[in-house]
Amino acid sequence: MMLDELREEVCRANLRLVAEGLVFMTWGNVSGIDRAGGRVVIKPSGVPYEGMAPEHMVVVSLEDGRVVDGGLRPSSDTPTHLELYRALSSIGGIVHTHSLHATCWAQARRAIPALGTTHADFCHGPVPITRPLRDEEIRQDYEANTGRVIVETLAGAEAAHVPAILVAEHGPFAWGRSSDDAVTHAAVLEKIAEMAALTVRLQPHEQPISPTLLDKHFLRKHGPGAYYGQGR
Amino acid sequence: MMLDELREEVCRANLRLVAEGLVFMTWGNVSGIDRAGGRVVIKPSGVPYEGMAPEHMVVVSLEDGRVVDGGLRPSSDTPTHLELYRALSSIGGIVHTHSLHATCWAQARRAIPALGTTHADFCHGPVPITRPLRDEEIRQDYEANTGRVIVETLAGAEAAHVPAILVAEHGPFAWGRSSDDAVTHAAVLEKIAEMAALTVRLQPHEQPISPTLLDKHFLRKHGPGAYYGQGR
Amino acid sequence: MMLDELREEVCRANLRLVAEGLVFMTWGNVSGIDRAGGRVVIKPSGVPYEGMAPEHMVVVSLEDGRVVDGGLRPSSDTPTHLELYRALSSIGGIVHTHSLHATCWAQARRAIPALGTTHADFCHGPVPITRPLRDEEIRQDYEANTGRVIVETLAGAEAAHVPAILVAEHGPFAWGRSSDDAVTHAAVLEKIAEMAALTVRLQPHEQPISPTLLDKHFLRKHGPGAYYGQGR
Amino acid sequence: MMLDELREEVCRANLRLVAEGLVFMTWGNVSGIDRAGGRVVIKPSGVPYEGMAPEHMVVVSLEDGRVVDGGLRPSSDTPTHLELYRALSSIGGIVHTHSLHATCWAQARRAIPALGTTHADFCHGPVPITRPLRDEEIRQDYEANTGRVIVETLAGAEAAHVPAILVAEHGPFAWGRSSDDAVTHAAVLEKIAEMAALTVRLQPHEQPISPTLLDKHFLRKHGPGAYYGQGR
Repeated sequence: MMLDELREEVCRANLRLVAEGLVFMTWGNVSGIDRAGGRVVIKPSGVPYEGMAPEHMVVVSLEDGRVVDGGLRPSSDTPTHLELYRALSSIGGIVHTHSLHATCWAQARRAIPALGTTHADFCHGPVPITRPLRDEEIRQDYEANTGRVIVETLAGAEAAHVPAILVAEHGPFAWGRSSDDAVTHAAVLEKIAEMAALTVRLQPHEQPISPTLLDKHFLRKHGPGAYYGQGR
Repeated sequence: MMLDELREEVCRANLRLVAEGLVFMTWGNVSGIDRAGGRVVIKPSGVPYEGMAPEHMVVVSLEDGRVVDGGLRPSSDTPTHLELYRALSSIGGIVHTHSLHATCWAQARRAIPALGTTHADFCHGPVPITRPLRDEEIRQDYEANTGRVIVETLAGAEAAHVPAILVAEHGPFAWGRSSDDAVTHAAVLEKIAEMAALTVRLQPHEQPISPTLLDKHFLRKHGPGAYYGQGR
Repeated sequence: MMLDELREEVCRANLRLVAEGLVFMTWGNVSGIDRAGGRVVIKPSGVPYEGMAPEHMVVVSLEDGRVVDGGLRPSSDTPTHLELYRALSSIGGIVHTHSLHATCWAQARRAIPALGTTHADFCHGPVPITRPLRDEEIRQDYEANTGRVIVETLAGAEAAHVPAILVAEHGPFAWGRSSDDAVTHAAVLEKIAEMAALTVRLQPHEQPISPTLLDKHFLRKHGPGAYYGQGR
Repeated sequence: MMLDELREEVCRANLRLVAEGLVFMTWGNVSGIDRAGGRVVIKPSGVPYEGMAPEHMVVVSLEDGRVVDGGLRPSSDTPTHLELYRALSSIGGIVHTHSLHATCWAQARRAIPALGTTHADFCHGPVPITRPLRDEEIRQDYEANTGRVIVETLAGAEAAHVPAILVAEHGPFAWGRSSDDAVTHAAVLEKIAEMAALTVRLQPHEQPISPTLLDKHFLRKHGPGAYYGQGR
């Protein structure tokens, strides 16, 4: 029952990736978690978005990654998702894409600096970048190690303050309270990445915005003192 | 009655922002003014464009910003709009967006130089950029101070000759005779900003066009000697 | 009769500008000529494309630019078109746009070098750029002088070998055997301009292709020895 | 019978070029091969995609390029396709386009370095670039020589590991197990080319990814140890 709803939500979130222009071919996946049951629902591996339905979603165990339900193989990135769910207890959904601009910052091995209020409305500081994986981390348990290097880079930061990260030489991961919220973050990240890329071409010596402006914009949208929107 | 028309016009102008590709998520707002009644009609804060209707528009007092009519909170940028309406007596509508290219110039903290006749048809000189706000201006009355720094930067220039401005580290504001006219200006500004960004990549030492060409193009479209179009 | 067909053709060509993504707002115009009758049919000035119909087209005299038929003012660029029709006796249609990439090269005051076979299939050498107009050429007879500086820059080159030009600080003009052919050239020019801009960013010291490759591609598509396509 | 199916497949693949945004005007062609019969089916030369049907496809002999069936002239690039089919015995389809970003790398005369895992999922190393053709290779048998310089540049590499190449000053060719597979490769190449162009602007001294990461990603998708997707 609860899992059926999650399957529908995760399927809808995967299809929203396409609508938001965040995926090309089959390069992207969304998952959601049922914390109470210890179950993660995720997109199957290498399956086209066209015709994708809730029953194609794969259910795996948070504990050991074993497939619990579903006739298809889960995304090859499943071990990365599991590492993140274990480390970030407040999140309910995760997205991985190869969206154009975020991937370019990841390939350039650069964090995305906070260059304006659009960024500050989204992330409370730069969008971080991981270190490249070591050869032994690539050869063995590659996908789980991808999750571990993300957790290492976050260094305990609050998930709500850093809603996305770039894996060096690879691409972005984003998360949120739900799989739908995670897709919103992936979409905003892509826009932020595009803006930052165009800005550094106009101003190569660009300085990040002041901490005061960063706080003002992040906190007027997020947290207890927020006054943007219609309230909760 | 009069206000009902304005509500419809402002709602239509907000939706036109989407059609012109100027907004992403809920990042944008349009307002219009009833000068006789001292009322400003503006988009509600953080509300999705889909399903937006005239009855969602919020009516506030020009004098003190108090909500006079409407069940939703007004845009958090309302105090900025009010400052502009008070200082620029000839304008009837205001637009704020985070449109891609204009925002990048704002983040790069550069005015947009007049590099060609497309620009000169729109603005009688560079599109100005404000100074960054001081920490104390950010902490207290941030949105009103944003309006004040715009007015300070305009330094008395005629609103019809400078139909838009960039707020440093933030994004563009545009205005016009009506809210619809302001949206047209926001759209042209975005195109001008894109052209200028691509031009300075082809020609980093680009010189602005001559004052003679600037006058020729601006004045053949605007003002008493205009001969472009079908006349009024 | 003949003029009615031309009105339809020119109207269709103007609307094709929109379909090809070459115009923004009302910034573009197409004309066609009836050489036998000495009549030029052109878009009216500053009129929206939506709802544009053949009866809105304006007929002017090639000889003196006088409006011969039509209830609207002709495009303010009409004198430029007339200068070109007088100087280039082989052309049947002319297009002026502010299309994004071609305009950026014009604003950068750079000719578009022949950097690949895509360019060579279109133009037998660089797409030329005019000199900037002098102040007195801007103040008096500006639009006719724009045509004259184009003719001066072409310096007698065959119109079929140089199907387009950039007016410095302004934007592109293109021509062809008919108004439809001219729109095709304006569209190809825009693509060529985009490719060249992206190429010089990847290779700032880019050399033009060899004269042998330029001849091979231009001549396999154009002229007596052409072997591309299905023959005429 | 067999040829009729191939005609349909090749026609569908040509139309897919349009759907994938890989062609402008008539600039692109796809072919497929019937190895048993020694027949190649290819798009006709310079024919618009609109209204294109299987019966327009041209059948030529692999051995000597003679037209065996079809009332139209084959693509002028047919001799290039034939050289590739002769040299690469494992391929079933070939695509040539002037797609924007891949063509820009070709015009810049640069191979596309493997800058991230998106690239590594597609190609087992850089996407190579040919040397420019010599004047005598352009003047005589130009199209066949284009095929020969591609084969020379591949230097015996496995076609499945290098699914595409750039011809200097010209544009990309891609291949695959079928004409549909070749179109997929042409589309991925275009995306890779765009990503690489944006990446080198953010990081001019970009280093390619490590051989370990390149192997990991290419081999998890291709070859006997692949574990991406749902198996074959």
